[in-house]
Amino acid sequence: MAANNTFRSTITPADVQAVSPALASYTRSAVVEGVWNRPGLSRRDRSIVTVATLIARIQTIGMEHYFAIALNSGVTPAEVSEIVTHLAFYCGWSNAFQAVDVLQGIFASRGIGADQLPEISPELLPLNEEAEAKRAAQVQENFGDTSQGVIDNTAKFLFRDLWIRPALAPRDRSLVTVVALVAAGQVAQIPYHLNRAMDSGLTRDEASEVLTHMAFYSGWPTIFSALPVFKDVFAGRKN
Amino acid sequence: MAANNTFRSTITPADVQAVSPALASYTRSAVVEGVWNRPGLSRRDRSIVTVATLIARIQTIGMEHYFAIALNSGVTPAEVSEIVTHLAFYCGWSNAFQAVDVLQGIFASRGIGADQLPEISPELLPLNEEAEAKRAAQVQENFGDTSQGVIDNTAKFLFRDLWIRPALAPRDRSLVTVVALVAAGQVAQIPYHLNRAMDSGLTRDEASEVLTHMAFYSGWPTIFSALPVFKDVFAGRKN
Amino acid sequence: MAANNTFRSTITPADVQAVSPALASYTRSAVVEGVWNRPGLSRRDRSIVTVATLIARIQTIGMEHYFAIALNSGVTPAEVSEIVTHLAFYCGWSNAFQAVDVLQGIFASRGIGADQLPEISPELLPLNEEAEAKRAAQVQENFGDTSQGVIDNTAKFLFRDLWIRPALAPRDRSLVTVVALVAAGQVAQIPYHLNRAMDSGLTRDEASEVLTHMAFYSGWPTIFSALPVFKDVFAGRKN
Repeated sequence: MAANNTFRSTITPADVQAVSPALASYTRSAVVEGVWNRPGLSRRDRSIVTVATLIARIQTIGMEHYFAIALNSGVTPAEVSEIVTHLAFYCGWSNAFQAVDVLQGIFASRGIGADQLPEISPELLPLNEEAEAKRAAQVQENFGDTSQGVIDNTAKFLFRDLWIRPALAPRDRSLVTVVALVAAGQVAQIPYHLNRAMDSGLTRDEASEVLTHMAFYSGWPTIFSALPVFKDVFAGRKN
Repeated sequence: MAANNTFRSTITPADVQAVSPALASYTRSAVVEGVWNRPGLSRRDRSIVTVATLIARIQTIGMEHYFAIALNSGVTPAEVSEIVTHLAFYCGWSNAFQAVDVLQGIFASRGIGADQLPEISPELLPLNEEAEAKRAAQVQENFGDTSQGVIDNTAKFLFRDLWIRPALAPRDRSLVTVVALVAAGQVAQIPYHLNRAMDSGLTRDEASEVLTHMAFYSGWPTIFSALPVFKDVFAGRKN
Repeated sequence: MAANNTFRSTITPADVQAVSPALASYTRSAVVEGVWNRPGLSRRDRSIVTVATLIARIQTIGMEHYFAIALNSGVTPAEVSEIVTHLAFYCGWSNAFQAVDVLQGIFASRGIGADQLPEISPELLPLNEEAEAKRAAQVQENFGDTSQGVIDNTAKFLFRDLWIRPALAPRDRSLVTVVALVAAGQVAQIPYHLNRAMDSGLTRDEASEVLTHMAFYSGWPTIFSALPVFKDVFAGRKN
């Protein structure tokens, strides 16, 4: 810990070594030189998966390290910024603000300014009106009597706005969402978003490898709870 | 982050702006000037819902801000104190202690002392012996062979003590509990407590609006996992 | 909070008293002098259960306090180190690193060095090849089409390595795992690991008392969600 008994944002390999040489060894062999070097998912994708996991679980201690890896692996500052914005809605505002606390320093030290960040009101991607009408109708039928406020805000802020912001490709936005659901154990919400991710280009092999990667960051149990759901989604699709 | 790479308890709008102008904009339009201004739930209730969510999820970064808003919105220091006490049992002791870490400074700076806080052993509210006997009998039948210790402590510390402490109105105590369950994804425990909340005066419209409000703080997936449970509870009631 | 608005690793009874005299009183009567003094589970076991809960939920504020209690209650430095290593896989790497941040200072102040910590590559305990073959075959059948990467790493890093490391008795390793599952609400994964724990010597009374103890640290709802699962596991066993 830092001097006055406060928590740090990063620990070093030497810190890990001092508490558990075995954990330091696993970190090298299984994680850094292990899962990160597997084929099946790009380094860029792995860094997106990792930071989304950390934000979803408020795992602060890895944020500084992995945001830097993301920026060094081809995730643009605009994309990192937009991931945080997206996860404010999917993990809660405070989760996103925790990421802001870390990213602010990283952006400042790299000279990343407003000109490199997504616009507030960009021209939105075209909306698939048919698919959105179908989604909205189903939610209205299911939960119209339960919370019209949730339904209205879901359409207004999420599917007719956030989801079609151009700062993140639809495939990446869905990937971040699926990761957040797996990481938080929100398995009931996975089918819709995993199907959407795969409709937007996430391949079956990539989705499978996302779980292999995430196991180290959100823990094995979250993965084994997601596996039957992924299995059912895969079984229900042609691609 | 603060100087020596430690985490802060609050970030400013300028901090958010530096990482995501879009998130700063959503914070204004969707949250501060948005959901907080909707009818259907008082500002006092919204602040209770928000701080309970933050405590349930150990979302430290909003605590200082929203505890202040709660105290400025008609939640008394005694009520804030009692919410923390209540959530020690419903979210875990460490979650409550994290809130203590933040609240201590707020109480000190406002000159709030022991005379404004709930007594340790007040005269308790009258217990509905019939309802409690029924609850206890059902839990005993279900889990008497599984953990008598849990059953005994549940009666002793919760339903024959904490729940009838006068420092928080039964409706507010139930509201805090329901929020903690939704925020933590503990959907199986919602029906009992949502029914109890509504028996104590929480209206259907208020319960509905709680979900609309919480979506921004605990994330959309927790709300969509709670919606079918709220729907069933609503369907099973006359009011 | 500490000076520059950062969070602390520990709060004192006086801090709790200043925010909630009632919570300070419950901490004494229900927790410190209450559940910790119940029969049915040793002080050593209770400290293992507590630190595993804190790591699983990233409840940082109790870590320093309870790691010290663990070391003072007969949990060796090697066992504490190995618990952290084990939970890296079961709760996520960042959860373990948060514990490292706290433990490093504790180990340093007690003069605990590498000679007291588990080896990186010790002679492993004998593997029950038959049971492992059965486990592997079932997972392969269930999820071979879903994520071969998860399956391969589960065998390689977990059941053919981590689980048979000698630094933690199999009964204790299973106990830590069950606690992590209950604390995180991962109920679907409990049956396999609770059965394994009981096969390795955890008694029914101890498992029952684990829930009584954990209620205070992970919150009552996590316990009531685990009770029906424990009940079913108990019902399916002869011992």
